[in-house]
Amino acid sequence: MNTFGNKLRVTVFGESHGELIGVVLDGVPAGLPLSADDFLADLDRRRSGARGTTSRHESDAPHIVAGIYEGHTTGAPLAITFDNGDTRSGDYASLLDHPRPSHADFVAARKFHGFNDPRGGGHFSGRLTLTLVAAGVVAKKMIAPIAVAAVIKSIGGSSDSAEFQSIIEAAMADGDSVGGVIECTATGVPVGLGEPFFDSVESLASHLLFSIPAVKGVEFGSGFAAAALRGSQNNDPIISPDGRTATNNAGGIVGGITNGNPSVIRVAVKPTPSISRTQNTLRISTGQVESLAIKGRHDACIALRVPVVVEAAIAIALAQLIPDPRL
Amino acid sequence: MNTFGNKLRVTVFGESHGELIGVVLDGVPAGLPLSADDFLADLDRRRSGARGTTSRHESDAPHIVAGIYEGHTTGAPLAITFDNGDTRSGDYASLLDHPRPSHADFVAARKFHGFNDPRGGGHFSGRLTLTLVAAGVVAKKMIAPIAVAAVIKSIGGSSDSAEFQSIIEAAMADGDSVGGVIECTATGVPVGLGEPFFDSVESLASHLLFSIPAVKGVEFGSGFAAAALRGSQNNDPIISPDGRTATNNAGGIVGGITNGNPSVIRVAVKPTPSISRTQNTLRISTGQVESLAIKGRHDACIALRVPVVVEAAIAIALAQLIPDPRL
Amino acid sequence: MNTFGNKLRVTVFGESHGELIGVVLDGVPAGLPLSADDFLADLDRRRSGARGTTSRHESDAPHIVAGIYEGHTTGAPLAITFDNGDTRSGDYASLLDHPRPSHADFVAARKFHGFNDPRGGGHFSGRLTLTLVAAGVVAKKMIAPIAVAAVIKSIGGSSDSAEFQSIIEAAMADGDSVGGVIECTATGVPVGLGEPFFDSVESLASHLLFSIPAVKGVEFGSGFAAAALRGSQNNDPIISPDGRTATNNAGGIVGGITNGNPSVIRVAVKPTPSISRTQNTLRISTGQVESLAIKGRHDACIALRVPVVVEAAIAIALAQLIPDPRL
Amino acid sequence: MNTFGNKLRVTVFGESHGELIGVVLDGVPAGLPLSADDFLADLDRRRSGARGTTSRHESDAPHIVAGIYEGHTTGAPLAITFDNGDTRSGDYASLLDHPRPSHADFVAARKFHGFNDPRGGGHFSGRLTLTLVAAGVVAKKMIAPIAVAAVIKSIGGSSDSAEFQSIIEAAMADGDSVGGVIECTATGVPVGLGEPFFDSVESLASHLLFSIPAVKGVEFGSGFAAAALRGSQNNDPIISPDGRTATNNAGGIVGGITNGNPSVIRVAVKPTPSISRTQNTLRISTGQVESLAIKGRHDACIALRVPVVVEAAIAIALAQLIPDPRL
Repeated sequence: MNTFGNKLRVTVFGESHGELIGVVLDGVPAGLPLSADDFLADLDRRRSGARGTTSRHESDAPHIVAGIYEGHTTGAPLAITFDNGDTRSGDYASLLDHPRPSHADFVAARKFHGFNDPRGGGHFSGRLTLTLVAAGVVAKKMIAPIAVAAVIKSIGGSSDSAEFQSIIEAAMADGDSVGGVIECTATGVPVGLGEPFFDSVESLASHLLFSIPAVKGVEFGSGFAAAALRGSQNNDPIISPDGRTATNNAGGIVGGITNGNPSVIRVAVKPTPSISRTQNTLRISTGQVESLAIKGRHDACIALRVPVVVEAAIAIALAQLIPDPRL
Repeated sequence: MNTFGNKLRVTVFGESHGELIGVVLDGVPAGLPLSADDFLADLDRRRSGARGTTSRHESDAPHIVAGIYEGHTTGAPLAITFDNGDTRSGDYASLLDHPRPSHADFVAARKFHGFNDPRGGGHFSGRLTLTLVAAGVVAKKMIAPIAVAAVIKSIGGSSDSAEFQSIIEAAMADGDSVGGVIECTATGVPVGLGEPFFDSVESLASHLLFSIPAVKGVEFGSGFAAAALRGSQNNDPIISPDGRTATNNAGGIVGGITNGNPSVIRVAVKPTPSISRTQNTLRISTGQVESLAIKGRHDACIALRVPVVVEAAIAIALAQLIPDPRL
Repeated sequence: MNTFGNKLRVTVFGESHGELIGVVLDGVPAGLPLSADDFLADLDRRRSGARGTTSRHESDAPHIVAGIYEGHTTGAPLAITFDNGDTRSGDYASLLDHPRPSHADFVAARKFHGFNDPRGGGHFSGRLTLTLVAAGVVAKKMIAPIAVAAVIKSIGGSSDSAEFQSIIEAAMADGDSVGGVIECTATGVPVGLGEPFFDSVESLASHLLFSIPAVKGVEFGSGFAAAALRGSQNNDPIISPDGRTATNNAGGIVGGITNGNPSVIRVAVKPTPSISRTQNTLRISTGQVESLAIKGRHDACIALRVPVVVEAAIAIALAQLIPDPRL
Repeated sequence: MNTFGNKLRVTVFGESHGELIGVVLDGVPAGLPLSADDFLADLDRRRSGARGTTSRHESDAPHIVAGIYEGHTTGAPLAITFDNGDTRSGDYASLLDHPRPSHADFVAARKFHGFNDPRGGGHFSGRLTLTLVAAGVVAKKMIAPIAVAAVIKSIGGSSDSAEFQSIIEAAMADGDSVGGVIECTATGVPVGLGEPFFDSVESLASHLLFSIPAVKGVEFGSGFAAAALRGSQNNDPIISPDGRTATNNAGGIVGGITNGNPSVIRVAVKPTPSISRTQNTLRISTGQVESLAIKGRHDACIALRVPVVVEAAIAIALAQLIPDPRL
């Protein structure tokens, strides 16, 4: 449900246009230095503002409301909230009758018998990833000296970063959107993280990654490309007693366990389904497929905001697997 | 660890050359008709024997040792075991000193401080998937009338099924192996399965799929291809009050929740790392990279045996999400 | 840790003198009517004010900050917070050096390496039971028509309620405190709640009850008295097809499963360890046992405030076990 | 359900007259020396044979079927099974129509819609405690140097051990049974085990203890007696920097956390409900209360066999809380 993890337990709550959203982190060791400032860099990377992202000025200021004392974590649950400001009340009744294609409008109304908060996607809103990023900031501290870094690998099918901007602008000009691929690398990963049978590093990481709205694919190392290779091409010969391999087609994970090489994960982000150009989709009250024009602010390329969310997911996954700290 | 699930809890145990392997299924409703014969078709699909799979005649006969009475499940945990027969004691000490590339030999020895059972891969053996298939047989009964069916989509990069056999034979002739892609479709899926935020259908399914040895990528619907599309291409217009969409790029899942269309999942299976041709990899005692020739029986294309395992994973994932039966 | 439950997942956070305390409830069905007013009666029962309870005017106003829309639960996590007001900053450094007997001061400092928030007991404060009571209000709605009601059964060893006030006043006059026993009854409980082997009703209930500070004993039905009885005295003959028994020594639970009779639970609450009269206990800096006088406001009989907390624990336990609602 | 724990995960399965019963232990560190002989002493303590216990010669030989290699645990799940021998097929149809008072016959049939295995109590049988004892043997090794030891404190209301035998024999002569109280002490417990808010030592221990059939009460330290004391009597002054206290009314646990003193737990065991003398209880087919005489072998005092089961529960609870071993 809305809690993930065992050693580091992450619980998220909130809805896009409710009073606030938040996250509770349980299992954070006592004595970790932490302040609101520590969150700003990552929250800023997720924030809208770049060309191709929405102009909504979200109130992204983190409030650490529990679990901190004199600048350090206390060992009690850490709770961080974000007020919801700058929300515009839209015509949500209309969405319920004329649900947007590939949005959660339809499934949410059915699943929750019409009681879900439809405003801004409610609990299904991408705004919830703010809590994941905040959790990621703490998880990154917990897993140090392991470091995670994610970048955009491709946009709209092109892996030439010089083209990204023009691809996005062309989509915007058409009232359309584009997807992208994110690659995340974790370095400094020791040998032996991951638990057979069900809690492989890949299992925990993908579980979290597929919680991120718009993620539709996850692969490790050579991933889908490995399916087209021969064993002699895909195998990674060990060349050093610390487990270093000549190639890293395994993405640093063998048998579900880290092997001493960098973990490499790629994530497919679909084009945001909110587009300005009209689409045909069912109007429930009439039972007819009718033309729909979605108003409001959209991200033409939500993938631009996802790298830091992917980092958070990977950091939270690894935080489940690291040994207890010895203070 | 070795237990997955909440409503249907699956616990696996055993090692390739130990006395037996087994699975405990908790949460199976009382009154489900069940006999050992119900397992045979799926276990047979996983069995070796086809060209390109190993010639080891595994003892795949299921023993239902608990949780059944007079041909029906009792509501108590269902336990199913498989004896380990036809095991050949190999030269495992040699593997520890000269670990096979892209196998778990190295990481297992490090993780378990040399106490892991190295024979036949021990607990990391693909033989453990036998327990997953058995669990899948029960899960399929639980989720009926939802039906899951997986097929091989490509082998060695080719999606022309007429070429599969020759691609595999060419690899075998070279003492090599090939990977493949499996596609699984679940039909009859109602609207509303899946739980925000962390227990999306994709999250639960991928968690299980990445537990299967050799799986390195998972995607839903258009998956990685979606990252290259525009929203107007990837969106699925709703055309019917039951949620049916004109296209199914979402793979039947929107916002992590099933939308009334078939669930479509694709899984990348790497080429089996056990190949006959020599490879260079570290010998630990000398600290030198030395030539290694792996002896014994291998699957040239393990992907051939994986479809029924993928079905099991999807069925177990869906069994977490279906409502309680009303008897 | 700070999350309990499976079907209804309760996560608590906060420290006595931090910014706020709160609770997240996941698994609450959508469509439950709920407002802040619904909490007032139970919160009031827990509140201080009666003779024998502390005079601290806690700010017990609940803020439902997520999971509610137009007066109904949404199916997303319900989050409820309580601001911490009226806190007096005490001489907590002194407590760390001269820890109060039978308080968590000593163990908390050791467990969290001195980083715990010591103010007012921090996360160990009885104030956290406010969140449990709030969760109980929601759980009570979920389990209806099952009703839970707890009363004080004895104070300071006397089960004559007419004596309770004088017993408490005598203790207060001595700068001392007294314990008590609470009895909780759940009525309208259907046959069949509880899960073998580990999730018996008694197991889930006691797990929660022993989370309440000051609880040191839990018994069901005849409980400890049963240990002195013969089977012929303790057995409850069934007298009706709905499971009704002539006696209820089982406290409504047989084999861990509800049997159609009222559930009866008794809970031992120790005297609050904060007493005004001086005690001898170790001063860490000197290594000497020295006289300690605890200042400030105390409950002479914390048991007076516990019945509604016990009800909450029982309601939350039962909410794990009820079947899914069918809307 | 039938899995307990987080760090050490215990899964039990089996029914009294099925093929076998067993337990899977996940989270056992690799490298623990272990053989079947290690189980014999504890299994023997639980075995029947003493005056007052049943004469059934259960096949209590443990089979370690997975998770062991060359005399050490492997880090993979440890699975231990026990064959069910010496079972006599009784007239179980009659029990379903004329359910025994205070037995699980009635609730099991209702809960599982008549599909439960009724033979010998099925999954509700006390025979399942054999798996708990086996798990306890492993848990005791994990928590060393902490040691747990349980003894019978009272039988039939008498705490004079010289009277135990005659009390039991008197009950047997009357075709009746008696209950008892078990006291368990854990020594060598470090300061700091236990997790606020929900995973106090008391919570985890009681959760497990109430899984044991016939347990109806659990108390820690002075327990129910504390409810009759004043704070000045019940408080435990700290007298040593390692947390040692002058008295141990807390039973070694303050704020849910171990405080460096021995943990002391008492458990009430009800008289076994199987008695030879006739009882009146409902016959379902007639709807009338009719006389019932239970045939077969019974324990006149099941409490005699429970101390080692209590030890197992406490060891398993503590094994959840100890830090990871550093090998």
